[in-house]
Amino acid sequence: MSSVLIVGSVALDTVETPAGKREAMLGGSATYFSMAAAHFAPVRLVAVVGRDFPESSRRLLESKQVDLEGLQTAEGETFRWTGAYHGVMNEAITHDTQLNVFQGFQPVLPDAYRDTPFVFLGNIDPDLQAEVLTQVRAPKLVALDTMNFWIEGARARLLKVLESVDLLVINEGELQLLSGKLNLASGVREVTRMGPASIIIKRGGYGSVLYHDSQWFFVPGYPEENVVDPTGAGDSFAGGFMGSLARAGAITATSVRRAMLYGSVVASFNITDFGPWKLADLSTTMIERRFDAFRNLVSI
Amino acid sequence: MSSVLIVGSVALDTVETPAGKREAMLGGSATYFSMAAAHFAPVRLVAVVGRDFPESSRRLLESKQVDLEGLQTAEGETFRWTGAYHGVMNEAITHDTQLNVFQGFQPVLPDAYRDTPFVFLGNIDPDLQAEVLTQVRAPKLVALDTMNFWIEGARARLLKVLESVDLLVINEGELQLLSGKLNLASGVREVTRMGPASIIIKRGGYGSVLYHDSQWFFVPGYPEENVVDPTGAGDSFAGGFMGSLARAGAITATSVRRAMLYGSVVASFNITDFGPWKLADLSTTMIERRFDAFRNLVSI
Repeated sequence: MSSVLIVGSVALDTVETPAGKREAMLGGSATYFSMAAAHFAPVRLVAVVGRDFPESSRRLLESKQVDLEGLQTAEGETFRWTGAYHGVMNEAITHDTQLNVFQGFQPVLPDAYRDTPFVFLGNIDPDLQAEVLTQVRAPKLVALDTMNFWIEGARARLLKVLESVDLLVINEGELQLLSGKLNLASGVREVTRMGPASIIIKRGGYGSVLYHDSQWFFVPGYPEENVVDPTGAGDSFAGGFMGSLARAGAITATSVRRAMLYGSVVASFNITDFGPWKLADLSTTMIERRFDAFRNLVSI
Repeated sequence: MSSVLIVGSVALDTVETPAGKREAMLGGSATYFSMAAAHFAPVRLVAVVGRDFPESSRRLLESKQVDLEGLQTAEGETFRWTGAYHGVMNEAITHDTQLNVFQGFQPVLPDAYRDTPFVFLGNIDPDLQAEVLTQVRAPKLVALDTMNFWIEGARARLLKVLESVDLLVINEGELQLLSGKLNLASGVREVTRMGPASIIIKRGGYGSVLYHDSQWFFVPGYPEENVVDPTGAGDSFAGGFMGSLARAGAITATSVRRAMLYGSVVASFNITDFGPWKLADLSTTMIERRFDAFRNLVSI
């Protein structure tokens, strides 16, 4: 089975939603990604934490098939994020960001990671994403996530790294910002000219869209009443997608579509509890049943 | 083959979009509905126009399998609407509404219409919708469309007529307003308690959702770059849906899902030109090809 490499953030999140509030939970894009992907394939994680990072969180990740050889521990505190969700909860409102040790993060891949076939460049500085690409050898697929902050503040550097990327994973507003187009199809056409042949657009409660090999594929959002905390929905989606693809081993019209569904499956579970705890509890049966439920949402 | 009855508005629309401006075009919910439905089944129309209604528009509708025996001509001018679309064009901005003869509209069904099995109560005063129901005999399916204006301004009367309706067709914002719930699944659960066992939620560019027989069915929005004029998208969707269902004759798990796709097909064509002209030009081949394209958007 192929492995997945994720380079991103591990954080301690304080989150408030209409369902309640939790303080300093295990969080960060690489955490959600890893815990989702590990249901499908071995995961290798590259990130940085501070001396305050709880041993219990480290043990949780290790117990879930996540290799932590690439998790650096630096002097200082772990990256902390505080945010809230209101109303339809499609977007987080950030109250506070303390980068702490993440500010000086320099990704270094252990030797054992360099041949990982499925590489996910989490939402970090485009120069660091480019640096990771110099350290991997002949990956089968390189995917990249980014955000408004880099699209607006580091556009030239982002466009540079995009040239070397196979798949861009982005939310709808970010696609509009990056492409300068409000229309989905126009935006996708514009972005494929920047490098990535494939694009995944995350649409919150409306699900997600894949453009791959000149074909469109749409997955609806799951009609879930019990939305507790949307934090990590996009990252767990990306993890489920990459993990499923790594398990399949090959990138085919079918394997990418199945991967879209598995990503949607884990994301749909993730939002029903605070933090990544639901991802830790998922069984194969739960995943396969929800996969069938997703197919049934669109089947005739 | 079963017929479809539509009671609604026939209007003259002046519309401005990023693609241009058109004045006093044939429009109105019953027009878009009829011209979409008539591709699948005979349509019987009940509405009112003024003495100024162009003979060419009347001939166009008649040439398309739309029975105009129920189209009243009253002293005065036809209903006129002026509006504009900007940006992603998901919502119309109304600049002017002149109800004219529509203000005194009293729906009267010709005898030949009373046994129509598939009845669509377009977006008009709930009391008039209720009045139509007293004039039909044992319909197979009664569907109802409404809008914010009635939900807020005539809630009690709307709730009364909803008790006698099988299917509510509504957009997402209206569902939230009617149900008091922001969450899709919660809103649907709330509305099924009001009467309609089935609900269709229209989501603009995000497509549509059917809740029927305790099952969900999702159709994505078509990734169309050439969006010229969204006017009538929801009405042509409803027309395609009801027409396809009437053609099938029976309401089954499969026929309603196929009807959702046919509704999406005609709506996806309708928005690529001003007014209902594109609906007039559709061939069976175009419709069937787009139907297959819609299936392919979600198939694995």
